[in-house]
Amino acid sequence: MKVEKIMNRNYKSIEENESIFNAVKIMNENKIYGLVVKDKEGKDVGLLSERSIIKRFIPRNKKPDEVPVKFVMREPMPKISMDSDVRDAATYLSNNGLERCAVVDDSGKVAGIITLTDISRYLSKESIIDVLFSHRAKEYVHLCPKCGIGTLEPVYNEKGEIKVFRCSNPSCFYEE
Amino acid sequence: MKVEKIMNRNYKSIEENESIFNAVKIMNENKIYGLVVKDKEGKDVGLLSERSIIKRFIPRNKKPDEVPVKFVMREPMPKISMDSDVRDAATYLSNNGLERCAVVDDSGKVAGIITLTDISRYLSKESIIDVLFSHRAKEYVHLCPKCGIGTLEPVYNEKGEIKVFRCSNPSCFYEE
Repeated sequence: MKVEKIMNRNYKSIEENESIFNAVKIMNENKIYGLVVKDKEGKDVGLLSERSIIKRFIPRNKKPDEVPVKFVMREPMPKISMDSDVRDAATYLSNNGLERCAVVDDSGKVAGIITLTDISRYLSKESIIDVLFSHRAKEYVHLCPKCGIGTLEPVYNEKGEIKVFRCSNPSCFYEE
Repeated sequence: MKVEKIMNRNYKSIEENESIFNAVKIMNENKIYGLVVKDKEGKDVGLLSERSIIKRFIPRNKKPDEVPVKFVMREPMPKISMDSDVRDAATYLSNNGLERCAVVDDSGKVAGIITLTDISRYLSKESIIDVLFSHRAKEYVHLCPKCGIGTLEPVYNEKGEIKVFRCSNPSCFYEE
C-alpha cells in the first residue's frame, strides 16, 4: 500500500512566526496533534507536534503567545515521499523515533501527513510495536538548520529555564 | 498476562500544587510522558500527560511556572487494578481514549503506570489499533471533581485565552 493512498490530505499548516498559542488553538479546534510549518514565502520548513511542545516550549518558561513556532518545530521537517510503501514509512518513523511525518510530492511540497495510527492497519504487529517503542526511546535530536552538522542543545539560566538552544558545533554560532 | 507483571514501577509523581514547569522538567529529565499527581496528604489524585498539557495548559496562555499541575491533570485519575489482564487494560484505554493509565493496588494506591507501548507485545494487532484510533478520536473530557456529574468546560476571554474551566452542571459552581 502506497502512503499516498492513506495519508491525511486535510492537514493544517501555520506560518513559522505565529505563536505556540495560535498553533495549539488550531490543533485543539481540529483535534489534530501535528501541524506543517511554512516560512514567509510559503515553503514547508518544519513540523510541530505535541512532543516538540513538551521538549522545546515548556522548558523556556514563557507565555505561549510569546514564542514563535519556528523555535519549537522539528526541523529539518521529517518527511517521506508520496510513493513510499507504508512499510517504508514505518521504518522511517521507527528509525527517527517519530509518530508522524510529512508526505511530500516530487517537488518536495507537502501533500499530506501520515501517522502511525493511519498506517497501522497495513503493518505487521511487529512493525507497529517497533514504532511505538522507538517513539518512546529515541532521543529528541534537532539538527542545526544553519550548519547541518551540530545539534541544537539547551542553554539554561540560574532558574533552570532554557534561555536558548545553541548549536553544538563549535565553529557554528547558531542560536534560537 | 497480568498488568502487574509488566507495569512500570519506576513511575514518577509530583504534588498537585507544583507548577507545569517543574512537572515537565521531571518528564524531560526522565524521558517519560506521564506523571502521577498527589495531593498534600500524599493521596494519588490525578495523572498528567502530554495531551493534558496541550489541551488544558497552553490555551490558558500563562507561563509554565504560573500554573499548578492540579489545574491541568486528568482527574479523576484514570486507573485499573493490578490484577487486571493486559486485554482488560487495552479495553479500558480504548474506551477512554487514553494512551496510559495508573495501576492501583487493593487499597487504591498507585503501584505503577501502564502504557499502550508496555502492553502492546501481549495484545492482538486489532487491540493495538483500537487503542491508537480511540486515543486520536475520543473527546478529552474532564468530569467535575466536585459534583461528579458535569464536565469541565473552557470559558474564554476576549483574547481567546481560557480564563477558567467551569463545571457544566448548572447547580454546581466549581471552577479551576
